[in-house]
Amino acid sequence: MTTARRDTYTPETLLSVAVRVFNERGYDGTSMEHLSKAAGISKSSIYHHVSGKEELLKRAVSRALDGLFAILDEEHARVGRPADRLEHVVRRMVEMLIAELPYVTLLLRVRGNTETERWALDRRRDFDHRVAELLKAAAADGEVRGDVEVRLATRLVFGMINSIVEWYRPDVRGASDREVAEAVVRLVFSGLRHA
Amino acid sequence: MTTARRDTYTPETLLSVAVRVFNERGYDGTSMEHLSKAAGISKSSIYHHVSGKEELLKRAVSRALDGLFAILDEEHARVGRPADRLEHVVRRMVEMLIAELPYVTLLLRVRGNTETERWALDRRRDFDHRVAELLKAAAADGEVRGDVEVRLATRLVFGMINSIVEWYRPDVRGASDREVAEAVVRLVFSGLRHA
Repeated sequence: MTTARRDTYTPETLLSVAVRVFNERGYDGTSMEHLSKAAGISKSSIYHHVSGKEELLKRAVSRALDGLFAILDEEHARVGRPADRLEHVVRRMVEMLIAELPYVTLLLRVRGNTETERWALDRRRDFDHRVAELLKAAAADGEVRGDVEVRLATRLVFGMINSIVEWYRPDVRGASDREVAEAVVRLVFSGLRHA
Repeated sequence: MTTARRDTYTPETLLSVAVRVFNERGYDGTSMEHLSKAAGISKSSIYHHVSGKEELLKRAVSRALDGLFAILDEEHARVGRPADRLEHVVRRMVEMLIAELPYVTLLLRVRGNTETERWALDRRRDFDHRVAELLKAAAADGEVRGDVEVRLATRLVFGMINSIVEWYRPDVRGASDREVAEAVVRLVFSGLRHA
């Protein structure tokens, strides 16, 4: 039995190529032709794996979304005081964002032009809402300041975390995922000033 | 003397139309034809005001950059303890971002494909560097924590501030510019947790 080059492609490797091309050209600006060239396989070989580019988008953003929701199921996100649970979620969000950088980058760029994109935006909103509820509980508990409105605080914290996709590069010497996560936790929970 | 419609256009109003179109379509995706349609004036009328779309881009990002650099010249940014100066700069950056929302949004989307874009990126880097120096001085002074590396802290704080362009809409009932600025200052300097 011989193995032609295209047979070495699995749905997983095709997905990672597609995510790279989507991030470079934008999802709207990517054609099956672009994907075929980047993967070095024919369009019909791609159609052997997936129904089209929207299925690749769905798989890619699902990977990021599943990663985010899985954090909420971790023990430290479920058990304990709300502020500690929130701290765990923030730390893990940063680690997950860095571990799945291209997938989360794509998720954050989704704009809502297709059904899959709207579905992804809905799930992102659900996730944001779950984190906002945790922040609310922590404020009600008196552990977290009550003088910044919950929705505004959630947006700003997500803004800080999500901005990491703009500059973090795993191949450049710099902070590790744990160092970045620790820095975010310190800034978000204790701030810059010495108490 | 009669006033034709195109004569009511000043470089200023043309600029605000151009910035809106650049933000909607992307700078690369905007043609003089798009600008002419959006402004409701002929291309030759536009050329009466400016040499082309790159001049409009330069004027637009200059407005945002000049606004940012002007903050550093304000008295509270120059006089006092470094941490207080930094706090002033952070607060004013948020207020400026909201006051000049479309111009700052455009500046943050600049990617470096043209000479003007590269020039804008250079000036943004200069500004970031000036703020990082202030943070470094505040840490050396012992007023600000030294356990988060200065460049990383600067990136995260800028990430939080810049993310405001993604969701802030002046026409929607919500937080005012001062409320958002106050929330950012509280989070960045004191964090979420009660001391």
